[in-house]
Amino acid sequence: MDEKKKGSEKKLNRRDFLKTTGGIAVAGVAAGGLFAAPAKVFGADMPKKWDEEVDVVVIGSGFAGLAAAIEAKQAGASVAVLEKMPMYGGNSIINGGVFAVAGSPKQEAEGIKDTPELLLEDMMKAGLYMNHPTLARMIAEKSREAAEWTESIGVEYKERVTHLGGHSVPRSYSASNGSGSAIVMKEVEKLKSMGVNIRTKTYVSAIIQDKDGKVVGVKIREGYKFPDENSGTVKYLKARKGLVLASGGFSRDIYFRTLQDPKLTEDVDSTNQPGATGELLMEALRAGATPVQISWIQLGPWTSPDEKGMGIGYVFNAMGAFVYGVMVNPKTGKRFINELADRKMRADAIIRTGQPAICIADSEGVKRVSVLEKTIEKGVVKKFDTLEALAKEYGIPVDALKETVNNYSKYVKQGNDEEFGKYMQTDSKPMETPPFYACRAWPKVHHTMGGIQINEKAQVIGLDRKPIPGLYAAGEITGGIHGAVRLGSCAVLDCLVFGRIAGQSAAAKV
Amino acid sequence: MDEKKKGSEKKLNRRDFLKTTGGIAVAGVAAGGLFAAPAKVFGADMPKKWDEEVDVVVIGSGFAGLAAAIEAKQAGASVAVLEKMPMYGGNSIINGGVFAVAGSPKQEAEGIKDTPELLLEDMMKAGLYMNHPTLARMIAEKSREAAEWTESIGVEYKERVTHLGGHSVPRSYSASNGSGSAIVMKEVEKLKSMGVNIRTKTYVSAIIQDKDGKVVGVKIREGYKFPDENSGTVKYLKARKGLVLASGGFSRDIYFRTLQDPKLTEDVDSTNQPGATGELLMEALRAGATPVQISWIQLGPWTSPDEKGMGIGYVFNAMGAFVYGVMVNPKTGKRFINELADRKMRADAIIRTGQPAICIADSEGVKRVSVLEKTIEKGVVKKFDTLEALAKEYGIPVDALKETVNNYSKYVKQGNDEEFGKYMQTDSKPMETPPFYACRAWPKVHHTMGGIQINEKAQVIGLDRKPIPGLYAAGEITGGIHGAVRLGSCAVLDCLVFGRIAGQSAAAKV
Repeated sequence: MDEKKKGSEKKLNRRDFLKTTGGIAVAGVAAGGLFAAPAKVFGADMPKKWDEEVDVVVIGSGFAGLAAAIEAKQAGASVAVLEKMPMYGGNSIINGGVFAVAGSPKQEAEGIKDTPELLLEDMMKAGLYMNHPTLARMIAEKSREAAEWTESIGVEYKERVTHLGGHSVPRSYSASNGSGSAIVMKEVEKLKSMGVNIRTKTYVSAIIQDKDGKVVGVKIREGYKFPDENSGTVKYLKARKGLVLASGGFSRDIYFRTLQDPKLTEDVDSTNQPGATGELLMEALRAGATPVQISWIQLGPWTSPDEKGMGIGYVFNAMGAFVYGVMVNPKTGKRFINELADRKMRADAIIRTGQPAICIADSEGVKRVSVLEKTIEKGVVKKFDTLEALAKEYGIPVDALKETVNNYSKYVKQGNDEEFGKYMQTDSKPMETPPFYACRAWPKVHHTMGGIQINEKAQVIGLDRKPIPGLYAAGEITGGIHGAVRLGSCAVLDCLVFGRIAGQSAAAKV
Repeated sequence: MDEKKKGSEKKLNRRDFLKTTGGIAVAGVAAGGLFAAPAKVFGADMPKKWDEEVDVVVIGSGFAGLAAAIEAKQAGASVAVLEKMPMYGGNSIINGGVFAVAGSPKQEAEGIKDTPELLLEDMMKAGLYMNHPTLARMIAEKSREAAEWTESIGVEYKERVTHLGGHSVPRSYSASNGSGSAIVMKEVEKLKSMGVNIRTKTYVSAIIQDKDGKVVGVKIREGYKFPDENSGTVKYLKARKGLVLASGGFSRDIYFRTLQDPKLTEDVDSTNQPGATGELLMEALRAGATPVQISWIQLGPWTSPDEKGMGIGYVFNAMGAFVYGVMVNPKTGKRFINELADRKMRADAIIRTGQPAICIADSEGVKRVSVLEKTIEKGVVKKFDTLEALAKEYGIPVDALKETVNNYSKYVKQGNDEEFGKYMQTDSKPMETPPFYACRAWPKVHHTMGGIQINEKAQVIGLDRKPIPGLYAAGEITGGIHGAVRLGSCAVLDCLVFGRIAGQSAAAKV
């Protein structure tokens, strides 16, 4: 790659792509060595003596791991929650805190009709009908119960539900502080109240099995300093009843994600926290878990190339411009996709245009963007008195842009998007009220749909087609629930439903 | 699944799909037990004594395995070629015998300009740019050498090259007898001339590794009767230098393919031979191989449900109706997809309609269908004097069908398909000339793109990101070369190039 890059923006067309991936990055993947991918050491023999024993060991302290720990503890098990990073919460704590609830009291209050069946259909459609239907159905059916469970531990939500891309109706709960931290903190509080503390800086380097393959414990490094695999003190921790893998996805493991999708080189940014490196997925595969749909990796379509990682610009795009405004190609000034299509459709469409898209909303369209001032201060969202000024800033043909906005206002008035069939909100307004706001959008790696196979009890299924005794999993490390493409706000749901089940199963030694 | 099924036809629409797959089939997948999927036993301890020793053991006797065996033998190694089925040749021997050669003498003779770079671009485009570029580039660059190698062992090809879908130019060699058997037989002859016979009915039940993970041999069952895993006599065969996995894909492993794509239940037929059951892929994963893109499974959209396997009806569909006619949903009488969209788009669209599509061409549209009379004799294609008679036969609403055909004729006249944007051929004619011909189309599983990771030396790469000592692989068991979607006639090429490399690497103990 000999092009200069600006931030996470990337000039990527087909020819360039061939050049890029024919070069160093993927050559390394192919050779298994040239790429900056140190060989990993996996597995460990049974220790002569265990340093410590608990009933249930949970790896990971995001939504899923914490839910598992709460359930296991409530079932009477002694529990250890291990987290390799210095702070608990994993990716969940920087997550947007929205989750899909089908047929909720909040929907009823707004007169929105919805059912778990409709959520399931939305999930399957986004997932290209590759979802494992039994598991997908379970989270759809348990969504209301999961919401109530979070409320029972003190989580508070905004009054109104949100309409995210790919959903047939507005249905997503939003945490009151606009972040998954609202859920994580309450889960942690709950655990603390039961006497369980999160053991941070604790890295798991191996899943330990007996000679029959049964999982009996883990080899850990206490005082681990990410990402140094040789840091910390080695200990062996026995899991008398079960081990729950809730260690998340591999969006930040550039080697492995490039192997599964060679387009996702180091030049593509990720919304994830640095620790989303997926080594426990490799270790689970080594231990005999069955890989499911691992090459389906999701790019988020709403992120800004003008800030690193998830940032905050996405809030303007997802809650403002996509719902109440337009996304245009700066070269043409025209819309090019339904701004509420599923994530893959939108991300693919943006990449095909060859440069970041411009997402635009007027003053009416930003009313639900709680962090608007912050995004402007950061310079990620810009404010303009006129569409002319906006067009000039981004080099958009001004007449084309005005026509696009006028057309869109017409669609709002008639309640029908003639071009892309976007769902018009009951509170949508014509885009006529300055000032106008804009944010660039360029996709970043967001979620790894695939992972290891589980069943309805969150037991991990081995290559021999039977559960691996003592091993459970939930959340992003698992595969199949979301199929090819995960629908927004279904990750929290998945993590909470299967996290709880995994904890229950492990404690009961299912 | 309580519906009666007729042949490989399947009533499947979205709602049914949700219902169906929420039922037994995938519930079984989820539970890892209910489905008709007996638990497999994998792995084996090191034997106290080996029954036999050779330098190189090759598993599989298709294009790749035979090429590996020839190269290993020529390099001075003693070689054993193991084949579980009663007949050698695997899927290669029932393959169509076409393979892509870029920049060949045959192309030069026809004045066709082509380069390996252009073939690579075609492969990457079909593969959704998910191909491992270094490996894909290798087969593109070695295509001419591979063709010459087959000619050097006596394979003969038709004079003219063929233009297959997805290729920018005509470039595919066709074996003189129109079958991959022409290549397989010459490979077998060559091996026999060097004193190597194919050991059929020999099942490999385990890859044996030493304590450091190095592959040292296999556990086999001689006199195996497919598919009885307990048949035959157990023996241990040492591979002093290397083991080459060339055992093919898993199109016929209903459990595993349904796990990777829940739409591909037992109700979906396959073009593959019955032995394409992929147990060696599971065993390689157990041994620590890295899974790559395993959920990308290709369906051919052109096959008929009125004959088993590949059949001949596909020729009418691919060369006639798709190019010069229409494909309609019999329930509505309407078209539902661009009949020249890529394989995946067409196959997915047919499945979503819930029943086999009806592919229709008039007398002008069948002029390029060389096997038309044969397809009619077999009853796969039917002939009708009128559209009314055709509609009646398939239960299509006749007025809707007439409107569809009239519209299509209009599109032909104006050179613009207003509905689906299909490319209109220069020799397309309005569909006005009886008799009319029809063939049903229902997708069948054709190729499994994913598999285990290899490098340029055909070494299998482990989860620890290093080659697994002593283990090599080539052909459909490997993943990455074709990315998301394999381009027609690139399988033979892949098998020959990497089969030869695997044999050379194993013999040299690379």
